[in-house]
Amino acid sequence: MKSLLQCATVAAASIALLMTGSCSDNSNTSAADGSNAAIENIMTRTSVRTYEPGRDISADTVEMLLRAAMSAPTAVNAQPWKFIVVRNAEVRGRLAEALPNAGDKLTAAPLTVVVCGDTSKFFKPQPEYWVQDCSAATENLLLAAHATGLGAVWCGVYPDQERVKVCSEALGLDGRFIPLCVVPVGYPAGENTPKDKWKVENVETIE
Amino acid sequence: MKSLLQCATVAAASIALLMTGSCSDNSNTSAADGSNAAIENIMTRTSVRTYEPGRDISADTVEMLLRAAMSAPTAVNAQPWKFIVVRNAEVRGRLAEALPNAGDKLTAAPLTVVVCGDTSKFFKPQPEYWVQDCSAATENLLLAAHATGLGAVWCGVYPDQERVKVCSEALGLDGRFIPLCVVPVGYPAGENTPKDKWKVENVETIE
Repeated sequence: MKSLLQCATVAAASIALLMTGSCSDNSNTSAADGSNAAIENIMTRTSVRTYEPGRDISADTVEMLLRAAMSAPTAVNAQPWKFIVVRNAEVRGRLAEALPNAGDKLTAAPLTVVVCGDTSKFFKPQPEYWVQDCSAATENLLLAAHATGLGAVWCGVYPDQERVKVCSEALGLDGRFIPLCVVPVGYPAGENTPKDKWKVENVETIE
Repeated sequence: MKSLLQCATVAAASIALLMTGSCSDNSNTSAADGSNAAIENIMTRTSVRTYEPGRDISADTVEMLLRAAMSAPTAVNAQPWKFIVVRNAEVRGRLAEALPNAGDKLTAAPLTVVVCGDTSKFFKPQPEYWVQDCSAATENLLLAAHATGLGAVWCGVYPDQERVKVCSEALGLDGRFIPLCVVPVGYPAGENTPKDKWKVENVETIE
């Protein structure tokens, strides 16, 4: 019942968006004909933890996901990232053992993208901006997956130093790359209802 | 010439997406009819730093941007965020003085969203996940702005402690809220060409 209510709330919000004049107010540099679809995609994305068994993802689709990820903004255009696509079942198994928080998803999904920071490209005056850059890239990846009918879930690694260590060992990473998160991706199985997280009390307006 | 080439590359990538079978392969939980629009919106978003003078943004549109922001995933569903919408010109002026990196954008744009972490909602075993959660929310905000014909730019604050201090003072924040970034939003003026950041060397595949 709860999920039905959540679904209804999200649907109502989407309909409200379709009816507001703001959404048809596009400049020629935006995705003019599909702005509602783009916003609906953001509103309806949710974490997907179960996947159709045996259904693989094409190389073209993976490239599209990574193009989306690399379209994220980065501080001073550093692009301090690396994306490791793990299709190999043995390596996914090693990752699953190393990261119990992500374990069953890592073995069930046909592939996992490990989003890493590339320390050689960090912005030296403020190296920690890599976390924000790679987080924006991860969100783009999740949104692109959802827009393509895929499902994915962001499983945290950094800054948990134990997780960083075991994940790096499972992948054979040297110190240049720091895993921020692992993102299993697959075709969704079962029902996945987006949470309604809108809370007016999280907004303050200074007029 | 460079921007024309970049534009052509982005356009080619978009056309390639339209032609790949993967994009029509939607489940019933995705934004099925507009998946290409959602992906194109991700690919064509870029930082916008100049805005149409005197053109305001409606309250409905701002709410839509914040609904998109709050649709981001958060670790253990903590939703550790607060969004401060600054329309007031005097307060924007104070912020501009405090944050020279964002100064001219803060005064030019009709409003600025300050994305903050809410320390009272941090996930206690790993409080730093708030940075990733709020970064995903910021990316959603930027994408929703672009999809609506608005332009915005992510101006970093945290973890630069001096910026955190002066930004907090300008807004009168107590210690509960930590500003991650300030995001001026307005209707774009001039040309804004997305960068092509696709680099195949940023991908490693483990087959």
